[in-house]
Amino acid sequence: MRVCIVGCGAIGSLFAAYLGQRDDIEVWAYDLDQAHVDAINSKGLRLSGVGNVHSWPKATSRPADIPPCDYGIVATKSLHTRAAIEATAAAFEDAAVCSVQNGVGNEEIIAEYVSRVIRGTTFPAGRIVEPGHVQQDTGGKTWIGPFEPKPASMDEVRRLAGTLTEAGMETLAMEDARGAQWTKLIFNAATNPIGALTGLPHGVACDQPRLRRVISQLVAEGVAVAEAQGITLDSDPDALVDHAREVAYHHKASMLQDALAHRRTEVAALNGGIVEFGRQHGVPTPLNETIWALIEGLEHSWTLAD
Amino acid sequence: MRVCIVGCGAIGSLFAAYLGQRDDIEVWAYDLDQAHVDAINSKGLRLSGVGNVHSWPKATSRPADIPPCDYGIVATKSLHTRAAIEATAAAFEDAAVCSVQNGVGNEEIIAEYVSRVIRGTTFPAGRIVEPGHVQQDTGGKTWIGPFEPKPASMDEVRRLAGTLTEAGMETLAMEDARGAQWTKLIFNAATNPIGALTGLPHGVACDQPRLRRVISQLVAEGVAVAEAQGITLDSDPDALVDHAREVAYHHKASMLQDALAHRRTEVAALNGGIVEFGRQHGVPTPLNETIWALIEGLEHSWTLAD
Repeated sequence: MRVCIVGCGAIGSLFAAYLGQRDDIEVWAYDLDQAHVDAINSKGLRLSGVGNVHSWPKATSRPADIPPCDYGIVATKSLHTRAAIEATAAAFEDAAVCSVQNGVGNEEIIAEYVSRVIRGTTFPAGRIVEPGHVQQDTGGKTWIGPFEPKPASMDEVRRLAGTLTEAGMETLAMEDARGAQWTKLIFNAATNPIGALTGLPHGVACDQPRLRRVISQLVAEGVAVAEAQGITLDSDPDALVDHAREVAYHHKASMLQDALAHRRTEVAALNGGIVEFGRQHGVPTPLNETIWALIEGLEHSWTLAD
Repeated sequence: MRVCIVGCGAIGSLFAAYLGQRDDIEVWAYDLDQAHVDAINSKGLRLSGVGNVHSWPKATSRPADIPPCDYGIVATKSLHTRAAIEATAAAFEDAAVCSVQNGVGNEEIIAEYVSRVIRGTTFPAGRIVEPGHVQQDTGGKTWIGPFEPKPASMDEVRRLAGTLTEAGMETLAMEDARGAQWTKLIFNAATNPIGALTGLPHGVACDQPRLRRVISQLVAEGVAVAEAQGITLDSDPDALVDHAREVAYHHKASMLQDALAHRRTEVAALNGGIVEFGRQHGVPTPLNETIWALIEGLEHSWTLAD
């Protein structure tokens, strides 16, 4: 089996490193960060933290290097989905391509370029410590299933799930993976931008009663949009907010980290995704629209001279 | 006539300086900034910019110094209304006390301490350059009228308006001053926090289509709350937003300046005021509540260690 990881940041590197441990799988890692690519090719790809892995995927920043694959796993930031799949689609002519990205809307873009698509959601998180070395901060499962409008077969989905699980990343094959995806989406859209706009860690934001109500109202809009699509959520996102307060009180949301570093955020695939799907299904989402506009404005401010 | 200005920051200093030009008025300036008080007493109070005034109010930081007055003019930030009027109320036992502050809810607090209250809204703006010296940035009118639940008489309102106008601050006496107050309130609540949350100058925020829609939606909630109270606005606040884009494109809202300096804002008297009056009159204001919560969260973040 040949698999190419498209976008080998922290998340993509987890997939590449775990899969790269198996002798029967040829793993390619495509990324535009030449230093990361060079380090992987010269020293291998190393995971520390929760994971303890050292493996040797073939890394490249040149799409033409990638041979025809059986699977693609897209792990770029949602901002870069189109550019990444456009560049690499030739390698996936007879492949099933799976998104494990944040937000919604990525599978739709991938499906414009390849014929069989898998919807995915993954919980493990990490960060690149230095080129070739990724710290895995948390474990957690991955859920995958056929992307309805242009699906991979369930057999292909099960084979990928089995391979990932055997490689050390527990992955569940689902007939309908939308429940997992929307549960994570709604949670992220209701909490990430609150951190970015206020500068507050998750637990501290939850302890501000007015702000906690805003989070619940954002969740409620997302739940209504999921229900209008006939999606059964895995769990109550509002309960996840409280759970995260318990286990990650001092956690600064990734979007807050983006804001502090003046990096463009994934708001368009999070709150923007809820707004767009809401529009398609006639569900009003005024609070998610407001949050989307505010984050977009904040991003714009970073482009202005003082 | 004896008048005491309560809170002698930029706005209060404008009132104190203009009134202090008249020989027939004894003007007291009460403020807790001892350097400003001492400078006024030793060198007089000087306006530059739009105004060019040098006058000699009697300044003090000790409430017991203030003799019985005919009028009080409260010009503190809305955060400090209660502390200021509580400290000075003894001087206003037979006075009419007028708020010229931002937001709503100040007159209600003042009315807990004195018997005759005047509702007011003022447009001139400025900033303290150094103790005893205020730069007046903009001119503009002041509107005053009886505060309905505990009103000063129209005669008292007219006498104060005439005195201010003759002193150089054009002031209109109105039977109902709520229209002017709510017009400014709705404009401020829809634009100030957008600047504070995004870091964008007013005109730049207006040019972001998604953000401009949020501003209009905030305005619409405020207009609905005003209508529910039977208030006739002076003008369309949404048109004022466009007008301000023309005349003050690069202006950073005062709340953005507060945010950059990590100073507590007046959000509770702006968006919070719209929310509270909305609640009293059964008008939902979810966007103003969200903005209020976000600004409050941002303020809270400044109190945390990094």
